[in-house]
Amino acid sequence: MVDTTNASCVLVREPLPVQGVRLSSGRAGLYKKPRPDLVLLAFGEKSHVAATFTLSATAAAPVLWSRDQLANTSHARALLINAGCANAATGAPGLAAAQTCAAQVGALLDVPSHHVQIGSTGVIGVPLDVAKIASALPALAEALTDDAKAWSAAAAAIMTTDTIPKAVSARVNIDGHDITITGIAKGSGMIAPNMATMLAAIASDAPVAGSILSSLCQRVTQASFNRVTVDGDCSTNDAFWLIATGEAPIAPIDAETDPRLASLEAAIEAIAIHLAQKIARDGEGATKFVRIHVAGAANAQSARKIAKTIAESPLVKTALAASDANWGRVVAAIGRAGVAVNLDKLSIDFGTHAVVRGGLVAASYDEAALSAYLRGENITISIDLGLGAAQDEVWTCDLTHGYIDINGSYRS
Amino acid sequence: MVDTTNASCVLVREPLPVQGVRLSSGRAGLYKKPRPDLVLLAFGEKSHVAATFTLSATAAAPVLWSRDQLANTSHARALLINAGCANAATGAPGLAAAQTCAAQVGALLDVPSHHVQIGSTGVIGVPLDVAKIASALPALAEALTDDAKAWSAAAAAIMTTDTIPKAVSARVNIDGHDITITGIAKGSGMIAPNMATMLAAIASDAPVAGSILSSLCQRVTQASFNRVTVDGDCSTNDAFWLIATGEAPIAPIDAETDPRLASLEAAIEAIAIHLAQKIARDGEGATKFVRIHVAGAANAQSARKIAKTIAESPLVKTALAASDANWGRVVAAIGRAGVAVNLDKLSIDFGTHAVVRGGLVAASYDEAALSAYLRGENITISIDLGLGAAQDEVWTCDLTHGYIDINGSYRS
Repeated sequence: MVDTTNASCVLVREPLPVQGVRLSSGRAGLYKKPRPDLVLLAFGEKSHVAATFTLSATAAAPVLWSRDQLANTSHARALLINAGCANAATGAPGLAAAQTCAAQVGALLDVPSHHVQIGSTGVIGVPLDVAKIASALPALAEALTDDAKAWSAAAAAIMTTDTIPKAVSARVNIDGHDITITGIAKGSGMIAPNMATMLAAIASDAPVAGSILSSLCQRVTQASFNRVTVDGDCSTNDAFWLIATGEAPIAPIDAETDPRLASLEAAIEAIAIHLAQKIARDGEGATKFVRIHVAGAANAQSARKIAKTIAESPLVKTALAASDANWGRVVAAIGRAGVAVNLDKLSIDFGTHAVVRGGLVAASYDEAALSAYLRGENITISIDLGLGAAQDEVWTCDLTHGYIDINGSYRS
Repeated sequence: MVDTTNASCVLVREPLPVQGVRLSSGRAGLYKKPRPDLVLLAFGEKSHVAATFTLSATAAAPVLWSRDQLANTSHARALLINAGCANAATGAPGLAAAQTCAAQVGALLDVPSHHVQIGSTGVIGVPLDVAKIASALPALAEALTDDAKAWSAAAAAIMTTDTIPKAVSARVNIDGHDITITGIAKGSGMIAPNMATMLAAIASDAPVAGSILSSLCQRVTQASFNRVTVDGDCSTNDAFWLIATGEAPIAPIDAETDPRLASLEAAIEAIAIHLAQKIARDGEGATKFVRIHVAGAANAQSARKIAKTIAESPLVKTALAASDANWGRVVAAIGRAGVAVNLDKLSIDFGTHAVVRGGLVAASYDEAALSAYLRGENITISIDLGLGAAQDEVWTCDLTHGYIDINGSYRS
C-alpha cells in the first residue's frame, strides 16, 4: 500500500526494517486484559539519538530520566516503552522504577544504563510494577530482531485507547543508496503536544551526526506532532525519539549545509506528518479528520494560535460531529484566540465552500451544500485573516459521544 | 426560599422589585418555537450604569454598540435584550440593526438612543430580524412595570440552552434603609468569560456615582462571572450590566473610601456569585457542580490559571461525569497550565479526601471512599501548590453526553 502525501518521497504503509535497529515486543501484564504492553528497541553502536519531550511541569518519571540522559549526549543504545502505566505522579519511587528498568535493559544488552531511554504511557498516579517488567525483559532481549514484522508488533504493543496501530516507512535515495526510515507512534486522547505527541519513535539507517540530529528532531516535531490536538490535554509523558543508526554506506551527514540533509529531512518529516495525522484521525471517539488552515496572519505564531483555538473548541467540535453548519462557532473561536483580528477582512471556507467574506456570511453561501460537505469524513476549514503573509495548519478531529464513553471508562 | 452563601447578606430567591427599574418581556418571534425572547428594562433619570463586555476580538454588534455608548458616560436609561440571535459576525448591517433597535427603544421611551444598551444572545452569523423586534417593542414599552414578577419573566425570556431561569435578590441595610439588589443572568454553554458571562444585569436602588460604579463592576465581575468556565468557549456577546437607580433615600455613595460601599459591594458580589454558580450548575448537559480551589500559589494569576486549566480539561470533566477517581488527570492538567510547579510539594484533595501528598498518592488514599464522593452532585477539588500564599477559585461542571447532544442540535 502506498501513500503520496509528500511529493518528495513515497510512504510505505507496511513498515520496512531499518539496519541497525533490532526490536521486539511482549506482555509484562500491566493491563489486566491479555494484550502486549512492552516494547524494546536496541540500536547499533554507531547510532545517534535525539528526542523532544513534553513541556508539562508535571512530567512523568520516564521523561525526567530520559531527558536527563540525553541532555549532554546523542548516544543511546536502547529504548524501552511500556503501555498500561504512565509512571507519572509517582514521586521518587517512580523515578527509581524508571532507573531500575534502564539498569535491567542495560544489563541484558550489555550497554550502560544511562544509554537506555524509557517511555511509558497509561494511567497517571499508579506505581510502575517493575517486577512485571523485569520478568518480561529477558524474553524480549532474546527475541530482538531486525525483521519488519517486529515494527508492526511494536506499534500495536504501545497502543492505549488507539484503535489502529500506527507505523509507516519511507525510502529516500541519497548518494545512490536507498536510505530507510521507519516510524511508529501511539496517541488518541490527551493529545495537545507542547513538544511532541504521546509516544513516537522514528529510526533511519542514515549516518547523521548527533549535533545535527537534535535540531532536526525539533524542526520535524514542530512540522508534525506539534500540529495535532485532539482535546487540548497535553500529556505528562509525551516523547518523540529520532534515531539515526548510521549503518547506510554513505558519508556522514555532519553539517547543516550538507544538501543531502534536506532530502533526508523531507522524508523524516513526511513520516512524522503521516503518523501525526493518523493520531488526529484516530482521536478518541473521532468520526472525522479535521484540517484547520489559517493564512493571512501577521506571523506564524498568531496563525498557529488561532488554528489551535478552533481545533480545541468543544463547540466547533460538537457541531462538526453533528455535521451542523454552525460556522459562527468558528468566528467565536477566532475571537477568543488572543490574537488581534479585523472582522471586516476575515474569510472562512469549509472545503471549497465560501462561508464568510469580509466578516459576514458569503453571498454564495449555500447551507445545504455545506451540510452535505460536513457529512464527509475529511473536513478542511480555511481561514484567511487578511492581515499578512504568514500561515500555519493544525489537525484535529470531532468531539462525539465516543469520547465521553472512552474517557468515562478509561481505567476500567 | 433563602440561601446563606454569603454571611454578610441574605439572598432571596424570589426576585424583589428595585425602585427605579421597570421592565417587561415578550415574544418577537426570533425562535421558531413559541417562547418569550425579548426583554426591555427602563431605568429612572437618576440611574448610573456600568458594564463589562466580552474581550472577544470578534465581539458582536450589540457589544460594539453598547461599549461605545458607555465609553465616556455612566448614563443609560434602557437595556434591550433579545435571545434567539446573537447578531454576531453580521458586519455593518448587524451594527445598523443594533442601532435601529436602540433608536426604536429611545423613541418609545423618550430617551436618547445613545442611552439605550443592547444585549443579544443566540446563533452567530444570522442577521437580526429588526422588523420582528420593532413589531414587539410597543407592547413591551406599554407593559413596563416595577412588579417583582416581571424580573422572573425577564430571566426566563433571556434563556437559550439554560434549563432554569436565573434570578436572585438581596437586601442590605445602609444608613437604616433597606437597599434592594436584584440580578438576572443567562448562560449555559460557550461559557469562559474573559470579562463577564453570557448576559447578566444586576440592579440596585442605591445611589452610586458613575465614577465608582465602573470599578465596582470590574471587581464584582472578577470575583464572580470571571470564575465560571463551562467549556472554555468565550462568547462574542458576553455582557454584564450593573445599574444603580439612586432611588433609595440615602446620601449618594460617591467616594471609594465611603464605608457604605463595602456593604453594598458585598451584597452585589453575593448576587453575582450566586448567578455565576448557577450558570456553572446549569452548564450544558451538566450533572455535577465542580468547585476548583487552588491555594499555595506564588500569585493569584497562577492560581487562576491552574484552576481554569483543570476546569476546562475534557479529560478531568469526563472522569467526573463518570464518577471515576482518575485524579492523575488533575495532575496532568496542572502540569500543562504554563505555571512553574514543584511536584514534590503538591497536595490534592477531593472534598475531605486526601488524594495527593508531596506529588504522589496520599498514604490514606481510599479509592472506594473517593468514588462514593464523586457520585455526588457537588464536587470540590482543592489543590495546594505549596509555593506561596496566593489562592483563587473557579467553578465549572462535568462533561457528559448531554453536552454533545445539545451542541450537535443547537440550531435545530
